[in-house]
Amino acid sequence: MNNFTLSTFLTSNLQVDETTISLIVDHCKTKTIGQGDYLLRQGEYCKHSFFVETGLLRQYSIDAKGKEHILHFAPESWILTDRESVYFNQPSNYFIQALEPTRVALIDEQFIEQLSEKVPSFIDFNNKLLHNHIRHLQNRINQLLSATAEERYLDFIKMYPDILLRVPQIMVASYLGITPESLSRIRKELAYKNFKK
Amino acid sequence: MNNFTLSTFLTSNLQVDETTISLIVDHCKTKTIGQGDYLLRQGEYCKHSFFVETGLLRQYSIDAKGKEHILHFAPESWILTDRESVYFNQPSNYFIQALEPTRVALIDEQFIEQLSEKVPSFIDFNNKLLHNHIRHLQNRINQLLSATAEERYLDFIKMYPDILLRVPQIMVASYLGITPESLSRIRKELAYKNFKK
Repeated sequence: MNNFTLSTFLTSNLQVDETTISLIVDHCKTKTIGQGDYLLRQGEYCKHSFFVETGLLRQYSIDAKGKEHILHFAPESWILTDRESVYFNQPSNYFIQALEPTRVALIDEQFIEQLSEKVPSFIDFNNKLLHNHIRHLQNRINQLLSATAEERYLDFIKMYPDILLRVPQIMVASYLGITPESLSRIRKELAYKNFKK
Repeated sequence: MNNFTLSTFLTSNLQVDETTISLIVDHCKTKTIGQGDYLLRQGEYCKHSFFVETGLLRQYSIDAKGKEHILHFAPESWILTDRESVYFNQPSNYFIQALEPTRVALIDEQFIEQLSEKVPSFIDFNNKLLHNHIRHLQNRINQLLSATAEERYLDFIKMYPDILLRVPQIMVASYLGITPESLSRIRKELAYKNFKK
């Protein structure tokens, strides 16, 4: 299993000295949860950003008919959170659940804000995280609107290269916004195309 | 036609004195363009955020088959931009076009960054804009994945109450990710339901 600590992530992304990194890492507690356990449930207030050190998370919603829809997967070194709930202090519309035994670093958003006031390079870092998030969300919308199911599947494999081996097909289909039957057909067609080559 | 100036917007959203507001407004030039004109084309670098003072913009992409997909509409008082292109200095994947004669204030992102260093309340303001953007994008993804076409149409009317009267149905269908025929059917069914009441 891969292992990316928050400390490694910050060192390679933040232009600050080791003392500041230690200060942050010491403040951000880690939490270990089992497969199937939740970090957030619909209706709760999300208080942290979750940096995945080991394991795998998913963020999903449940519609009026009880069907699940996966918005994001977060494997090692990804950050997952409901920024709407954290920032606007609103009950969340989403669930965040571990799909494997998972250890996360709990990033306290208030602490980040306080730090931004003291360490100016933290403003840039936070800005970069937010813009990365926006880029990811905007691409996802464009893809849901404009890409064929096959294109979406191929992009999924590029973005999450090892997740196909870690989650059931029904979850991949949910992320792609297609039925498991369509996903199965796409996989067969791709295998046939590649075999012909 | 409604008229929301950048000055009004900043005064009601930023906790700073009038001198700072004037400083910003003086720096942000306005631009008036005709119906059908572009503020951004695919492949160009987006350099500004566009605050709509009068008129209406749309942001869209064109897929490999030449089909348009509308990601956002921006009527008066909305801000539209390709943050990915601005922030990461990348060629844009999107077009931003005026659907009516439109006047925008050109918000210079570098200027905003410089201002954040001088005026601390600007960091909060910028943070709020980014989080609002994330909230909007996340809800849109969740809706594309989980809501029925009828639910999406009803939410569209709530979010953009007067746009139905300002753009052709084919653009509304493109935003909703459905065919114009499906939109037409949904509208008929809703009219029938409401008439029965």
